[in-house]
Amino acid sequence: MQLPSALLEQAVNEFSKLPGIGKKTALRLVLHLLKQEPEKVEAFGAALLRMRKDTHICQRCYNISDSLLCSICSNPMRKQELICVVESIRDVIAIESTQQYNGTYHVLGGIISPLDGVGPDQLYIEPLVKRVQEDGIQELIFALNPTIQGDTTIYYIQKKIQPSTVKVTTIARGIAFGGELEYADEMTLARSLQHRMPVENLKV
Amino acid sequence: MQLPSALLEQAVNEFSKLPGIGKKTALRLVLHLLKQEPEKVEAFGAALLRMRKDTHICQRCYNISDSLLCSICSNPMRKQELICVVESIRDVIAIESTQQYNGTYHVLGGIISPLDGVGPDQLYIEPLVKRVQEDGIQELIFALNPTIQGDTTIYYIQKKIQPSTVKVTTIARGIAFGGELEYADEMTLARSLQHRMPVENLKV
Repeated sequence: MQLPSALLEQAVNEFSKLPGIGKKTALRLVLHLLKQEPEKVEAFGAALLRMRKDTHICQRCYNISDSLLCSICSNPMRKQELICVVESIRDVIAIESTQQYNGTYHVLGGIISPLDGVGPDQLYIEPLVKRVQEDGIQELIFALNPTIQGDTTIYYIQKKIQPSTVKVTTIARGIAFGGELEYADEMTLARSLQHRMPVENLKV
Repeated sequence: MQLPSALLEQAVNEFSKLPGIGKKTALRLVLHLLKQEPEKVEAFGAALLRMRKDTHICQRCYNISDSLLCSICSNPMRKQELICVVESIRDVIAIESTQQYNGTYHVLGGIISPLDGVGPDQLYIEPLVKRVQEDGIQELIFALNPTIQGDTTIYYIQKKIQPSTVKVTTIARGIAFGGELEYADEMTLARSLQHRMPVENLKV
């Protein structure tokens, strides 16, 4: 793509470094910004930089936060003795969007995956073990992706917190709401038969 | 979507103002930037602002440019007596990418479209007429979208430059290269029969 301006080209290059943004999309976005007032473009850049520089990682749960303790960990209305263990910030956002969970979180920052070179030491597992041992935690809910790596991570953490009286659970696995039985894979179907639940649970 | 940080939310909001970027895509882009070095995010914002503030509109052809005259208008190797009239900067980029055109451009900044409230006065038509009358232009090539609005714009400009000896052409309309006859609309097919061309033209 031949661009008539080097400055335009630089802006397009910067945009196309973002995931899922190709050169053509980048050009469309840049030409849109070109039509905006300079103040708006300035506000755009400033918001990104402020987000990058002024956000913190919560000291307790490793979620993103505007202060040293995140709004969830510092909220006295949330059950501090309940921890939902997730892989990333994105999972916290997804679970918060359900508005059904009233405990706290612990963001691992990834899952154990030897093939990708991610071992337990690169994750925030040690601080989680410490929280369980010192903060009077009653239940750990694992909300990890149902993969080998996810299960390995659950198993590793469960071993680490032994001996402990804390209850350890994982979010339910089974047929997704609105899903169709005939298209479910055998593993999911077999497991959901094995872990069948009382019909009363269907009531919301 | 519940976001755990107000700064994160502001950045997501700014991103989702861009065309074709929804909240979920914006979040993905922002979380990507969150993982980058602050310097990189700073460079990103700076490139956008520099592009918005330091680019010019070429005084002659209204293309985007790093200086007062764009690189095409100031290039002595390009045929200055040949003008390709286009709607937007994006069309200049598309035609330049073919590497087949060696003349100059004139960017109208839109096309005449009464329904959208765009009249000739909002477009750079007056300067084009002046160029034709004063700069010894030999040919005007219209490269506008083949729509009623495009044709109206061609007709209007052609009237405006009368009397003049300048040759006026439009880019060929017909079946697209690699297109299939049976899927072409009747209008295109009828027109391409009417404006059939000698087989010799097929040679590249």
